[in-house]
Amino acid sequence: MIAEKMKGMVANSSAIRAMFEEGNRLAKLYGRENVFDFSLGNPNVEAPEAVKEALISIVKEEAPLELHGYTNSNAGYEEVRQAVAESLNERFQTEFSAENILMTVGAAGGLNVILKTLINPQEEVIVFAPYFGEYRSYTSNVDGVLVEISPDTETFQPKLTEFAEKITPKTKAVIVNTPNNPTGVVYSEETIREMARILEEKQKEYGTEIYLISDEPYRELAFDGVEVPYLTKYYKNTIVAYSYSKSLSLPGERIGYLVIPSEVADSCDVIAAAGVANRILGFVNAPTLLQKVVAKCIREKTDLTYYNRNRETLYEGLIQCGFSCIKPQGAFYLFVKSPIEDEKAFCEAAKRYNILLVPGSSFGCPGYVRIAYCVAYETIIGALPRFQELAKQYFQR
Amino acid sequence: MIAEKMKGMVANSSAIRAMFEEGNRLAKLYGRENVFDFSLGNPNVEAPEAVKEALISIVKEEAPLELHGYTNSNAGYEEVRQAVAESLNERFQTEFSAENILMTVGAAGGLNVILKTLINPQEEVIVFAPYFGEYRSYTSNVDGVLVEISPDTETFQPKLTEFAEKITPKTKAVIVNTPNNPTGVVYSEETIREMARILEEKQKEYGTEIYLISDEPYRELAFDGVEVPYLTKYYKNTIVAYSYSKSLSLPGERIGYLVIPSEVADSCDVIAAAGVANRILGFVNAPTLLQKVVAKCIREKTDLTYYNRNRETLYEGLIQCGFSCIKPQGAFYLFVKSPIEDEKAFCEAAKRYNILLVPGSSFGCPGYVRIAYCVAYETIIGALPRFQELAKQYFQR
Repeated sequence: MIAEKMKGMVANSSAIRAMFEEGNRLAKLYGRENVFDFSLGNPNVEAPEAVKEALISIVKEEAPLELHGYTNSNAGYEEVRQAVAESLNERFQTEFSAENILMTVGAAGGLNVILKTLINPQEEVIVFAPYFGEYRSYTSNVDGVLVEISPDTETFQPKLTEFAEKITPKTKAVIVNTPNNPTGVVYSEETIREMARILEEKQKEYGTEIYLISDEPYRELAFDGVEVPYLTKYYKNTIVAYSYSKSLSLPGERIGYLVIPSEVADSCDVIAAAGVANRILGFVNAPTLLQKVVAKCIREKTDLTYYNRNRETLYEGLIQCGFSCIKPQGAFYLFVKSPIEDEKAFCEAAKRYNILLVPGSSFGCPGYVRIAYCVAYETIIGALPRFQELAKQYFQR
Repeated sequence: MIAEKMKGMVANSSAIRAMFEEGNRLAKLYGRENVFDFSLGNPNVEAPEAVKEALISIVKEEAPLELHGYTNSNAGYEEVRQAVAESLNERFQTEFSAENILMTVGAAGGLNVILKTLINPQEEVIVFAPYFGEYRSYTSNVDGVLVEISPDTETFQPKLTEFAEKITPKTKAVIVNTPNNPTGVVYSEETIREMARILEEKQKEYGTEIYLISDEPYRELAFDGVEVPYLTKYYKNTIVAYSYSKSLSLPGERIGYLVIPSEVADSCDVIAAAGVANRILGFVNAPTLLQKVVAKCIREKTDLTYYNRNRETLYEGLIQCGFSCIKPQGAFYLFVKSPIEDEKAFCEAAKRYNILLVPGSSFGCPGYVRIAYCVAYETIIGALPRFQELAKQYFQR
């Protein structure tokens, strides 16, 4: 009796669920410490101590009616939005004010809000493979059409020639995600400039507005001193969806924001409609206590050295085993080439070593697997000899 | 450039926004204490002290990674769901377990999740006027068709003859809300029994399953010792959407749950799909810290005597002025007959006395106005002389 649209989604979802249950089954058989679960993007670095302090002091000091009440605006507390705007202005030399910020139930909430705001049925949303599989569902939620750009497996930068070809008069939005899930790649400034140029040109050609939606849960997770360009500075019609899930290790708390710059076409309408969308989609407002916490912790950072050690150790270990993988400069994923074409079979083989990976097909890029290295360092150290055993099946050294 | 569907919603929404701004304008002119804002359902009773204590002790004692991390299941923490199930079983002699409970981003989140789970485009969702206006948006979000049953303005119990007539083979869900927003009326056990009988009969006649969705943010707000029937006990295909917004005064924190009983048709599929819907709609999971807080505060209650004093005082005062209004036994609203047919004009007239009311048209029931009495007692005392002045325009005494 469930809705037709949901049937396929439940079936797909069962694959991840099955992996989760497989993990539990293996843990029972071999002990949790002997299962190497690289399947989930759940941060392993604790929230900064300042988050705990902020939670306690806010709960102790603020009046409960205001602290836990509905916010006057569905966009969130004015002072929280102002704090976010000022912090962005300071970091990226932008010129946002509170009205450009809408606090959301994580980036997932923000993306659903902005797609609801912008997309008419049958309008097209472009994504670059490999991409976070949820974009497909989010686009389907508003009856939009997902258009995929095929992956450049050399660099995992977006293929811009194909991009230009696939923009049509029905293109309403483009989603980018940099640093990228699942590749970890940071889109270069050159890439962004060229992407912006193409978008400007196509807008002129078709007389349309095309919104570039930058999904940025991994913005703060960049290594080797690499700069992650702030996209609103390169293209006028850019909207940012941010999340504190990874930057403050608060994925369960569901807190993030949208930036809708005043330069965006029809920005007043878009801002007003996004507030309404936040309400009617059932979010109503971002959780209020957490709004105040992130404002108070706006300069806090997660422990990048932890993730970086994981990245270096796992990357080096896998290369030594014979696997091929681009060395990414961001996020907490490695996107490794499957030694056999059928990467799902490879994931099954890895499972026999108690190693859990996610097939690239889930990201529109078969032939690869995603390894989430946001795990305990010990998990990586324990897994490497098993990766070595696994590699022997495929590589002659 | 915003989506067509959003345009009308923004326009409607501006009416409430305009009221909010009007309130601010009046407050600047006359002082906040001289503005009598009865427009919002934002509780004026503080969250119980136990909520504060739970927040602090959980933050102090629990490991941050688990506390703020994604929950293993999108349905929420197993132990929280178990605590909710057991509390319901104890109170209502039901037989739920953790698997029947899905923690949600408030009841608004829960309703969107269950409609996404169940409704195919063009399927019908029945509501009884007057009804919470958001049901229209939630149904539209999934391309369903809202079917209204006209109000019985004598009792504000649902009109069951019209209900039976309007059920078709396309009817997939019925939303009830008792205690009711905006009338405060509690549906009687007799009403519920007859509604269940009609639904059973129609299911048999059409060979369909019709889900009764009980939206229960006001369940705990019942006066005069009235019992609010627990609907799963009367009709097999009942799903409950609950919120802690009013019962624990936590509307901004966005925490509630769905109950999907095992007796529901295809319950396994519905439960699995609702978990997926929670994820793909962008909620992902209910805020984790608050999940733990409500489990710890499961026996806490809001201060009903506060609301009851407001109810009695305002009701008596309005009747003495000459207004007509049913005396409701639940929620924190009075639904007052407008002394003139055009209730929007009446709201305008009230505004000249700095009194802010919501027109019944917003609830599918013109000719009436909603007064939210979840305000300071002083606001009611201060407003009564003004209501008296206002009444003189309409009633000869």
